[in-house]
Amino acid sequence: MRDLGSADILALLDIAEKIESKEIQPDISDKVAALLFYEPSTRTIFSFDTAVKRMQGKTIIMAGSESSSVKKGESFSDTVNVVRQYADIMIIRSIVEGAARYASELLDIPVVNAGDGSNQHPTQTLLDMYSIKKTQGTLEGLNIALVGDLRFGRTIHSLVYGLAHFGVTFYLVSPRHLKLPDYIRNDETLSNVVFMESNDLNEIIPSLDVMYVTRVQKERFADPVEYEQVKNSYQITNSLFQHNTPKDTFRILHPLPRVNEISIDVDTTKYAYYFQQAKNGLFIRQAIIAKLLGAI
Amino acid sequence: MRDLGSADILALLDIAEKIESKEIQPDISDKVAALLFYEPSTRTIFSFDTAVKRMQGKTIIMAGSESSSVKKGESFSDTVNVVRQYADIMIIRSIVEGAARYASELLDIPVVNAGDGSNQHPTQTLLDMYSIKKTQGTLEGLNIALVGDLRFGRTIHSLVYGLAHFGVTFYLVSPRHLKLPDYIRNDETLSNVVFMESNDLNEIIPSLDVMYVTRVQKERFADPVEYEQVKNSYQITNSLFQHNTPKDTFRILHPLPRVNEISIDVDTTKYAYYFQQAKNGLFIRQAIIAKLLGAI
Amino acid sequence: MRDLGSADILALLDIAEKIESKEIQPDISDKVAALLFYEPSTRTIFSFDTAVKRMQGKTIIMAGSESSSVKKGESFSDTVNVVRQYADIMIIRSIVEGAARYASELLDIPVVNAGDGSNQHPTQTLLDMYSIKKTQGTLEGLNIALVGDLRFGRTIHSLVYGLAHFGVTFYLVSPRHLKLPDYIRNDETLSNVVFMESNDLNEIIPSLDVMYVTRVQKERFADPVEYEQVKNSYQITNSLFQHNTPKDTFRILHPLPRVNEISIDVDTTKYAYYFQQAKNGLFIRQAIIAKLLGAI
Repeated sequence: MRDLGSADILALLDIAEKIESKEIQPDISDKVAALLFYEPSTRTIFSFDTAVKRMQGKTIIMAGSESSSVKKGESFSDTVNVVRQYADIMIIRSIVEGAARYASELLDIPVVNAGDGSNQHPTQTLLDMYSIKKTQGTLEGLNIALVGDLRFGRTIHSLVYGLAHFGVTFYLVSPRHLKLPDYIRNDETLSNVVFMESNDLNEIIPSLDVMYVTRVQKERFADPVEYEQVKNSYQITNSLFQHNTPKDTFRILHPLPRVNEISIDVDTTKYAYYFQQAKNGLFIRQAIIAKLLGAI
Repeated sequence: MRDLGSADILALLDIAEKIESKEIQPDISDKVAALLFYEPSTRTIFSFDTAVKRMQGKTIIMAGSESSSVKKGESFSDTVNVVRQYADIMIIRSIVEGAARYASELLDIPVVNAGDGSNQHPTQTLLDMYSIKKTQGTLEGLNIALVGDLRFGRTIHSLVYGLAHFGVTFYLVSPRHLKLPDYIRNDETLSNVVFMESNDLNEIIPSLDVMYVTRVQKERFADPVEYEQVKNSYQITNSLFQHNTPKDTFRILHPLPRVNEISIDVDTTKYAYYFQQAKNGLFIRQAIIAKLLGAI
Repeated sequence: MRDLGSADILALLDIAEKIESKEIQPDISDKVAALLFYEPSTRTIFSFDTAVKRMQGKTIIMAGSESSSVKKGESFSDTVNVVRQYADIMIIRSIVEGAARYASELLDIPVVNAGDGSNQHPTQTLLDMYSIKKTQGTLEGLNIALVGDLRFGRTIHSLVYGLAHFGVTFYLVSPRHLKLPDYIRNDETLSNVVFMESNDLNEIIPSLDVMYVTRVQKERFADPVEYEQVKNSYQITNSLFQHNTPKDTFRILHPLPRVNEISIDVDTTKYAYYFQQAKNGLFIRQAIIAKLLGAI
């Protein structure tokens, strides 16, 4: 995300919008995309695989580090240098921070980061921003609640940096041990952003444009008792919206998968947007791939 | 299978026939089929994957329940709701009875059942019926032997219900503990069907049009001694046909894989039809997918 | 490789060259290639998969012997007879020597051997020969060093037989226990070939056209101490070429993956050719598949 200025971001969102509306229909039928997923993720593979195929492109897929060459002791550098011989673009997911960037420095073809450990997952952030812009009509001056695990949540951190260009106010709602790290709250490059803490969802709901919810994972708590105490405080249920009417354009986002942090009775409300959000991932990934391949 | 009346079945077989003869060549090049195989089956995946690709469609495939989202605790309902965002049709195999039907109720895209536990495997039944019609010229009034495990054999049960529309006579040939369940033999909706029991293949062969053989699995027997006693009584060998000349149009079907219930010396006789039967699966699956996608 | 005479080989290399230069662009968009990889190999799967897709063909892929049908006791013969119903060409990798040849005898579609145990890996040999011809302009009368494990190295053996048609001189450089087997050195069909032994790379480098390096695997040594003693004697480093200037057209090949038998400081020299060699695999495999499918 740090490579992209606000103009780059808006340009990508604009392409995604035109792909969604079929105003532009990129054709990459002569291109091969290599998906190297050292850390398997069915969901993200599906999204990239579909994005490529919707443009008639081809994919070759490695899922899991059980690659026979890796087992034989091949270096990451050699692997990507070989796969580069077959492909026109490479999409890499790894638990190693910086893996995709390192590959991009080695190779003369475009490399897309599909998640590198706890560092970045930029296409998720871009689809989140696309979802926000699509539902709110703008990215400027929004009130956005970040709910759940704000400490380890990679998508949360990227989203904060992505939206920092647009002067938003974040309401931070999290268990005590899962607060947004100080190095982010105090980051000088985020001077454009207002952070507010809240532990009462009821209070803030009427002023929110977007609520972005993430999973609170039990394994993040040193003390399981504490987990049991807090887990329900951050569950979004339909009753929440019956007591506090949200704005008409209010929408709930979640990177998925969810476990129980959003109750399924929310799914049928007009506020639920997480499944459409997943679909938006297709358009953003098509936009990124088509742009990098010079197909638009 | 219970959703399909005889007219539906015959219409599908007719489309399959036209696809096989290339009279119609559906084009689904702008469609994506998601194959969700919670219970892996290389054979069935190959058949669906090929069927889609022969029509220039695209596939995204999840094989095994090792899906990362499922591991994180995502519900089946959420998984199909997300995959639905990427795909135009979903093909589901699961060990859970009713999984595909449940997905079809959740989603606004067509869902194909590729096998749900011991319940149904309707595309197998349709390809069996297509194979019978193709070799016999009709589905009406045939004499069909069902040989092997008639108790647990999912394909056997579905075939009985599928052919019930067409007034067939079934000769049931099975070990004592693997008989066709009474709830099927006594099912009032099967009043159109005649069941005959036999333990002497020699006796019935001359009157048969089709012999449908299934595996007798050792693990189905509480007593391994009993398995050893019966296993060879139900093995089909070439010598069987040298003593008892079958009809000229007599054919042997088997859903495959086989182990030793059909001797390989049968493979070179004109009666062996099980490999062509596998090929027929392609045409039936193309017909189903093309019809559901409105491509014919 | 034993099926191919020198005219066949040169014809295939010629097709590969025309595919690389885009002088011919085979279209196999209506064909399905089945990749049956009983022994998984991400690298080789990627190469075949890409080769098929670059010609708009479709692939169906089984990787690993975890095929559900194999687990149920299905014979290799039945498996290929079924998969044959779906595919127009079959590409087989197996640890069983002769597996692909056996399949080719069973089936009425073309079968490509993608490696059968320690026996053959003919498409690797053809890509090696393509790489040699491309870099040297000819296959005739070359001086080629074979370095590393000459005893168990399948690619080495195949290459010796492949180049035997063209009157080359081989310099054999290997640890004592990993020498080229006598049955090859004494093979009468190799009378056209000159074998020279050397343990001093410095000495031979100036006369070489090509150096073909393979991995020396620790597990090949009965005594690990011996491995430690020899492993560095056969490591190719950049300093080697600073003391002994090779010919201008000298190139280093390696079937990859490498571990440390070629130092990474060699990668940036003009002698390093192993990554381009991997790319050449695409063109050779396209040529083989297109020719077998009658698409050229």
